[in-house]
Amino acid sequence: MNFFEDIPVGEKREIGRHTFTAAEIKSFAARFDPQEFHLDEAAAARSHFGALVASGWHTAVVFMRLIVQYHQQSAAEKMARGEKFARIGPSPGFKNLKWVKPVYAGDTVSYANEVIEKRASGSRPGWGIVIARNTGTNQKGELVYEFQSAAFIEMRGE
Amino acid sequence: MNFFEDIPVGEKREIGRHTFTAAEIKSFAARFDPQEFHLDEAAAARSHFGALVASGWHTAVVFMRLIVQYHQQSAAEKMARGEKFARIGPSPGFKNLKWVKPVYAGDTVSYANEVIEKRASGSRPGWGIVIARNTGTNQKGELVYEFQSAAFIEMRGE
Repeated sequence: MNFFEDIPVGEKREIGRHTFTAAEIKSFAARFDPQEFHLDEAAAARSHFGALVASGWHTAVVFMRLIVQYHQQSAAEKMARGEKFARIGPSPGFKNLKWVKPVYAGDTVSYANEVIEKRASGSRPGWGIVIARNTGTNQKGELVYEFQSAAFIEMRGE
Repeated sequence: MNFFEDIPVGEKREIGRHTFTAAEIKSFAARFDPQEFHLDEAAAARSHFGALVASGWHTAVVFMRLIVQYHQQSAAEKMARGEKFARIGPSPGFKNLKWVKPVYAGDTVSYANEVIEKRASGSRPGWGIVIARNTGTNQKGELVYEFQSAAFIEMRGE
């Protein structure tokens, strides 16, 4: 991660993409969201969705995996170049998560992260808070998922 | 689920409880949130958490499983008594998710759902929108997790 001072507001990063297979949709749903339109094609066809769809929480946690991997790779690359990199603190939570459109079996969702605001932390000296809008867009270019995150990012402090 | 008309604002329901074992915390994290304080006791001990903690998304999806099971059991009981029950529509999303305190390995989280507002849907005749505050509380009585949900609930319409 870049240090707080080096993160420009308005910066947008492509985080990664993921294709939601029917098998994976059902496996996640059986464990965490056992509603019939996430578990069974025939029942999903009769539902308001009309076909098998991923749990909204599945869409959410895949984003989490991809952004963690993105930051880990970024940190590894900085280490390999001998550069310092910022620590990321715990997230206090987030706002306004929206499941805008269904994610159907076979859909590929591309995730992005855009910095919309940053400020120094009042409670943690040496740290800033970065607010970002995170989005998921399907292969047709339709927004399917978004939420606003807040994260503590270490300051360079030089 | 009770029909929209039969849900009193202020009603609070105990949804269920879950104990987060170290094995389950690591298994979830390996798949969806591979940060070291969710994966490894020694690394977690050196982190700001001081011990192994569950991913915030893990805390969230366990709530989802418990509330789906709660509604399924409630519907099965109504069917067995020959009563009608309301359908639940898709969730458009939620607001203000907060990971208030860490959930450590071995912690037991009790989840609850409290209706804080309801109104007729403008876009879907025959359906209402129910806003609820959902919480997770650990075995010491400390709030660890909360978010505000919105769901479409069918009206009885009699």
